[in-house]
Amino acid sequence: MLSALMVDKNFGFGTQIRKSPYFDSTVKWGATGFSVYNHMYIPRDFGSPEQNFWNLIEKAILCDVAVERQVEITGPDAYKFTQLLTPRNLSKLSIGQCKYVLITNNDGGILNDPVLLRLAENHFWLSLADSDVLLWAQGVAINSGLNVQITEPDVSPLQLQGPTSGEIMIKLFGESIKDLKYYWLKEYDLDGIPLIISRTGWSSELGYEIYLRDGSKGNELYEKIMEAGKNYGLKPGHTSSIRRIEGGMLSYHADADINTNPFELGLDRLVDLDSDIDFVGKDALKKIKQKGIKRKQVGLELNCEPLKGPNTTFWPIYKNGKKIGKVTSAVYSPRLKKNIELAMVEINNSEIGNNLKIIINHDEISSKVIEKPFYDPKKKIASS
Amino acid sequence: MLSALMVDKNFGFGTQIRKSPYFDSTVKWGATGFSVYNHMYIPRDFGSPEQNFWNLIEKAILCDVAVERQVEITGPDAYKFTQLLTPRNLSKLSIGQCKYVLITNNDGGILNDPVLLRLAENHFWLSLADSDVLLWAQGVAINSGLNVQITEPDVSPLQLQGPTSGEIMIKLFGESIKDLKYYWLKEYDLDGIPLIISRTGWSSELGYEIYLRDGSKGNELYEKIMEAGKNYGLKPGHTSSIRRIEGGMLSYHADADINTNPFELGLDRLVDLDSDIDFVGKDALKKIKQKGIKRKQVGLELNCEPLKGPNTTFWPIYKNGKKIGKVTSAVYSPRLKKNIELAMVEINNSEIGNNLKIIINHDEISSKVIEKPFYDPKKKIASS
Repeated sequence: MLSALMVDKNFGFGTQIRKSPYFDSTVKWGATGFSVYNHMYIPRDFGSPEQNFWNLIEKAILCDVAVERQVEITGPDAYKFTQLLTPRNLSKLSIGQCKYVLITNNDGGILNDPVLLRLAENHFWLSLADSDVLLWAQGVAINSGLNVQITEPDVSPLQLQGPTSGEIMIKLFGESIKDLKYYWLKEYDLDGIPLIISRTGWSSELGYEIYLRDGSKGNELYEKIMEAGKNYGLKPGHTSSIRRIEGGMLSYHADADINTNPFELGLDRLVDLDSDIDFVGKDALKKIKQKGIKRKQVGLELNCEPLKGPNTTFWPIYKNGKKIGKVTSAVYSPRLKKNIELAMVEINNSEIGNNLKIIINHDEISSKVIEKPFYDPKKKIASS
Repeated sequence: MLSALMVDKNFGFGTQIRKSPYFDSTVKWGATGFSVYNHMYIPRDFGSPEQNFWNLIEKAILCDVAVERQVEITGPDAYKFTQLLTPRNLSKLSIGQCKYVLITNNDGGILNDPVLLRLAENHFWLSLADSDVLLWAQGVAINSGLNVQITEPDVSPLQLQGPTSGEIMIKLFGESIKDLKYYWLKEYDLDGIPLIISRTGWSSELGYEIYLRDGSKGNELYEKIMEAGKNYGLKPGHTSSIRRIEGGMLSYHADADINTNPFELGLDRLVDLDSDIDFVGKDALKKIKQKGIKRKQVGLELNCEPLKGPNTTFWPIYKNGKKIGKVTSAVYSPRLKKNIELAMVEINNSEIGNNLKIIINHDEISSKVIEKPFYDPKKKIASS
């Protein structure tokens, strides 16, 4: 029925872009707009983005993020190879633990910023942002001399995020789920549906990621979770640009790309240049650190009417008539009641309080560098 | 003005997906629907896909294919490295020549099917289908011991395709363009706009690709070409699914993916296992060839009412109650007056004339294996 609707409405232009295992359920529950990410459709519109934001921070939302494709690394050298892919020191990554990591190329440029999951001694998943790290990893492996298998498994995550998500998870999985700590994972089975669950997300709220390990059961899983959440205010939703920008979380291609290095983003904690670990980009990152960075990510407050939606181009930033940077992500926060932005600017214009000009459609808007993250900077909400 | 319209209409969900240098012009000329390809928007709807098809085969269309991102390979070992990336023998690829190539991984799986352009002895572009071959190539380079630089240059192609495209090109570039042979390229300058032009395309019609080498001049170039074409029936358009399926041309992710090998597609001519060239996947492809393939791409004719649009899921194919394959690309050809399909089926069900069942939304449709390409199998139109 739903697939008939889709064919009649000609949703999409062919099979070049994949549909998620949750596709039919998201349409049934009201998804009206989709974007594309890792060669798949992702629902990004259930009516009002602002209502979606309130649903997230007041109760809970269920988000189809099957587009977070996994790169699975296994084999006798899987640990050594995974370490090769990231500047973060993995020596203290336990089995059952997750870490937010950067993937860098030989020049220290960022290729992706996935969550890394360690499922076993030599069994890892990289839960990806939007780029083909599968190809990167397979390429790096070619002459590495390491014995690894690198594949995309049949794994499709959901995000259950928001303050009531813990109660919904207890209803679904029992009290044991309360023992799952921030950035840890555990294997579960829901009425025969095989899952991995981690206490992670892209909302800066309390939340869980539920990794479905059988794509044929997507709609069944989605419906079970919606049913479990009906007394806890759960709403179908999508990752919230408002909340993630409030939290200063990155969107790859927007706030970071292959020409961005970790230090420009203030992510020095994700780069270990001092120990003897070996990873791609180490020499380049040492040189970048030694020379010092030329630009830096800052938070901005924009002095104009509430933005009606996120910026869809990189707005140029000026100081004294000279272009000194670009706005990478901008949105109006109805909670903070201001326009907040992530931007990349020349380092000598990055200090807090600096006044800058933004050009939006030929209009000049005044703006000021402010502290970021814009809300809950210590991530106490998500981690406690 | 146009960008204001886009912001007000909230086109897109942020800056994560890039806009083409031709974006404003395509909207001005009537683009109403966009897909996403290589992290960029591509116009795929100017009203009627069937009218776009007739425009293409009767006169000419101008298509924004800036999404065909280039991987630029330079440096003293660029030739050797480029050969490493493809099973096609490049020893006869002249400077100024192009070749359609496959990029394979270590297992012989297809990662992309770009057009390769040789701009100089050690200067190559891979004009990509939809996957991050930039990451793959940079990964392969890491321990290759070869001295190469691998980047994404500021290059954005247009396709001018159709029978009157030759006359439009003469109007723009003079009579010398007539000397440009099928699958050759030449450098041009149009009123200060730096270009590479090749006699290639994705239409199986006479056509040209015009590679803009300065992204700031996209709309200017688009308008100049539309102006030059106004007496030759030129229309704004988009790559035609109807025409490319008629021509049996592949759409990556639809008709081929990382789990598809060249032999399954009948592309043996693009794989040289007999000479001493070195490329990634050679051992695996030798083994695959020796063992023989288990499935094969075929052309199908579908016995039902004209399809209203392309398939948006992979329709399963049955024989005697057993699933034996999937439809990868399907469309109604208004010229051939039938539903034509590319499909991947078990090898013992691939012979011409074989009757098969397709399931579309629970309906059983009868179907028959027929010769492909479905129109102009020798590509005489495009190459003459």
